[in-house]
Amino acid sequence: MTQASLWKAYCDSLIVCDDLGLSVDVSRVRFAEGFRATMAGPLGRAFEAMAALEAGAVANPDEKRRVGHYWLRDPGRAPEPELGEAVRNAVERVRAFAAAVHRGEIAPERGGAFEHLLVVGIGGSALGPQLASAALGTSADKLRVHFFDNTDPDGIERVLERLGDEIARTLTLVTSKSGGTKETRNGMLEAKVAYERAGLTFERHAVAVTGEGSELDRLAAADGWLERFPMWDWVGGRTSETSAVGLLPAALQGVDVLALLEGARLMDAHTRAPDAATNPAAALALAWHHETGGRGQKDMVVLPYKDRLELMSRYLQQLVMESLGKERDLDGNVVHQGIAVYGNKGSTDQHAYVQQLRDGVPNFFVTFIEVLRDRRGTDLEVEPGVTTGDYLAGFLHGTRRALYESGRDSITITLDDVTPRSLGALIALFERAVGLYASLVNINAYHQPGVEAGKKAAADVLALQRAVASALGPEPASADEIAARAGRPDEAELVYKILEHLAENPHRGVGRAGGRHPREARYRRL
Amino acid sequence: MTQASLWKAYCDSLIVCDDLGLSVDVSRVRFAEGFRATMAGPLGRAFEAMAALEAGAVANPDEKRRVGHYWLRDPGRAPEPELGEAVRNAVERVRAFAAAVHRGEIAPERGGAFEHLLVVGIGGSALGPQLASAALGTSADKLRVHFFDNTDPDGIERVLERLGDEIARTLTLVTSKSGGTKETRNGMLEAKVAYERAGLTFERHAVAVTGEGSELDRLAAADGWLERFPMWDWVGGRTSETSAVGLLPAALQGVDVLALLEGARLMDAHTRAPDAATNPAAALALAWHHETGGRGQKDMVVLPYKDRLELMSRYLQQLVMESLGKERDLDGNVVHQGIAVYGNKGSTDQHAYVQQLRDGVPNFFVTFIEVLRDRRGTDLEVEPGVTTGDYLAGFLHGTRRALYESGRDSITITLDDVTPRSLGALIALFERAVGLYASLVNINAYHQPGVEAGKKAAADVLALQRAVASALGPEPASADEIAARAGRPDEAELVYKILEHLAENPHRGVGRAGGRHPREARYRRL
Repeated sequence: MTQASLWKAYCDSLIVCDDLGLSVDVSRVRFAEGFRATMAGPLGRAFEAMAALEAGAVANPDEKRRVGHYWLRDPGRAPEPELGEAVRNAVERVRAFAAAVHRGEIAPERGGAFEHLLVVGIGGSALGPQLASAALGTSADKLRVHFFDNTDPDGIERVLERLGDEIARTLTLVTSKSGGTKETRNGMLEAKVAYERAGLTFERHAVAVTGEGSELDRLAAADGWLERFPMWDWVGGRTSETSAVGLLPAALQGVDVLALLEGARLMDAHTRAPDAATNPAAALALAWHHETGGRGQKDMVVLPYKDRLELMSRYLQQLVMESLGKERDLDGNVVHQGIAVYGNKGSTDQHAYVQQLRDGVPNFFVTFIEVLRDRRGTDLEVEPGVTTGDYLAGFLHGTRRALYESGRDSITITLDDVTPRSLGALIALFERAVGLYASLVNINAYHQPGVEAGKKAAADVLALQRAVASALGPEPASADEIAARAGRPDEAELVYKILEHLAENPHRGVGRAGGRHPREARYRRL
Repeated sequence: MTQASLWKAYCDSLIVCDDLGLSVDVSRVRFAEGFRATMAGPLGRAFEAMAALEAGAVANPDEKRRVGHYWLRDPGRAPEPELGEAVRNAVERVRAFAAAVHRGEIAPERGGAFEHLLVVGIGGSALGPQLASAALGTSADKLRVHFFDNTDPDGIERVLERLGDEIARTLTLVTSKSGGTKETRNGMLEAKVAYERAGLTFERHAVAVTGEGSELDRLAAADGWLERFPMWDWVGGRTSETSAVGLLPAALQGVDVLALLEGARLMDAHTRAPDAATNPAAALALAWHHETGGRGQKDMVVLPYKDRLELMSRYLQQLVMESLGKERDLDGNVVHQGIAVYGNKGSTDQHAYVQQLRDGVPNFFVTFIEVLRDRRGTDLEVEPGVTTGDYLAGFLHGTRRALYESGRDSITITLDDVTPRSLGALIALFERAVGLYASLVNINAYHQPGVEAGKKAAADVLALQRAVASALGPEPASADEIAARAGRPDEAELVYKILEHLAENPHRGVGRAGGRHPREARYRRL
């Protein structure tokens, strides 16, 4: 295609959301002849399924749950008035709590005002807050935000070291829908001990976002935490940014959460339209289907040209891969669906792996995210008439063209600026695109059956560790011998792994002799 | 396979580097019958090519360059004594400079001591330093390290805001081999202005790592920067962590760079052995070849279960994808090679996308990185006899098993601890694995011809921007009209993109009316 015909295709296909300062360009997807006509029927059914979901149908048949993240930003659409009222109340309570913290009315035990926020959560309870914190943070933030997003004791120590004495001015927010997520439980216990070591009462610095009646909810109520906020079973972790899970840390940081909700609500209106030509989420879903053959044949590389949006690909990794990565379709057929997502930021990634994108294995399509507004401060001309930001834009457009010319397709999403409103819109855009795409390929986007296997297997490892501790004696023995003694001769490899871990950590009471190789290593109780 | 036969396979194939406290396990790669025999010949030739490279052959035929990162940690192996001497001198100068900074002998203009380090670089000049800084940083760091790793003016402003008045105690390190990388040049200019705004002389806070005689080298010499360190043309950016590029920021931070070099040197010795059974880099290269069909058919998911190593996958993205992502093989055949790399950290990623890894499209293999040592501080029992770190280990082993049982292969690299020595070893391990793999698939791992296209295209965009600025008049006109006036009617789309960017930024002198859609938008000079 000539540049002139590409320009015509661009103008013909560009979807502009003027109210949001956002546009979606799929002109660099080489749609096959007849593709759109073929997809018209499936897309129509996807719109119908989405309308039913928004009206309160059980859209997650496995777990018999409704899927209501769209009600969070437009509570009048909730299927029962009480649900809408609960949403409105939660938003008001979030704002009131944040305002009281900012005014110093809700204050740390030793007085003064809260200056730091420690968010304890993982997966859906961390990625949205991390994205919003990075994308919207300024030097004027009311609280500085930190995260425990793992069960790595060293990672936890590093955050606590960074906080230091500031822990006395730190509010801790524990987020877990079920209250049973072990990483989060462990982070909470580590935080509690850190407060206690500083002579402080954890509960007077703690707030929870959790399901009503969950283990965490009962604990927080019994121990008199500062406050509890709801997490409903009809909101999935990966679509919880516009619930208290995302709104509370954002509000505490100082973000205008009403603007975030408004951006999502306006985008929801655009993506509700059952019209492939004007619905930006439908445009994305069709492009994804075209590029991946509807079977995950290509990876989605996400390249925001804006440092603030560096976590966008990680956020989308969860939203897209957890929603779409499924073994079976809705009819029970084995399909092994999904789309792999990766990326960091442009132009930085051009120096890391655009070499492969341009010349190497053509197993991907790119989603560029362009931000028009360069900076708040004064422009610096690095050459006459040319700014640092002009280079950033030049690299984006240059790379988009170079990739297209070497046969690699791309989508470009353009934002006027990164604001609470545009971030809300961006999140809502991808939430809807994922939902529509899942319908196109006939899968349940709202469950995650595969996550349980790893948790179950981890519990088995810990049970085995207890058996190993009992079987360990004062005389050196091999992993095989200890496994046999523990009554689990079949598990010698895991026993070896457990012993290696314990032996490398002082105070765990395990000594190793004879080298690391399993044929040589001998272990004993110290 | 039963657990017992997996355990036997584990013991038979495990490669242990006892001197480094590091092991490589490929027992969860289901090697096809006869695969190793088939690969014996190609692997033998790969070892020969590697030996020739280490001896000083021109291993980058395109650019007629030698490839000498192995000489950096064992200068006695350099093909000429002068090269080895230059390497030794550079290490000594790096250490002496860092020591003088730490002692306050090299001090900021206004006195006191340097407390911050700002590294200005991108790609190979940033990712190694970022990885080392994150992996090895402690609360006892001598300098706190910050990065300009992009040409995003907003990102630059955020770093400067974080530094605030501390800029007076900030040493700036500009790293660019050619001195011509625009992102780095722009970052340097932004830094210079920031010092000047604070009433400081940039040059008295600046140090360069660059090629002798480069644009940057001449500038630093002419302006009297604090110091200049060498970057040789026989060291590629993506393999420069053990050159001054990586050593200088690490030494300034307070890292024991001799231990880093020693770890790399010891690993180089292990990976030099022309023996598939004991060489851990050969084990990786063969596993990669098996998993990807030698053609990038699967992605490499990198999952370190340790927060400190979160940037490892990004570092490997560059090392692997820029080295292996090539259009042509060494005989000129079009092959479109490469292996896509992504990942963040475990167990966090289990909550983000292990759902897809376990149930979804089986287009990947996993590299687990296990760290045995949990923490420096006191263990916390979260249940009787069970620590936060036991959970981390349990999730790793549980996930490894659950993936294997659902047919997904994995490699596990185990480290005793994350130290300068083990990080040096890990980097050297992957450097060699990439080199051997490139030989197996007959490509040049040491050039990056595809990177130029994006740069060239970006320059074209900036040239067009200048023409647009001249063509813009006081009366509103469409992008088509302005493109025609600028003599580039074929480039109306880029002209539109340029105008949108300028219009969204105050003080750029461009007004927009009529909405954002290209068919409606009109632009004029303000």
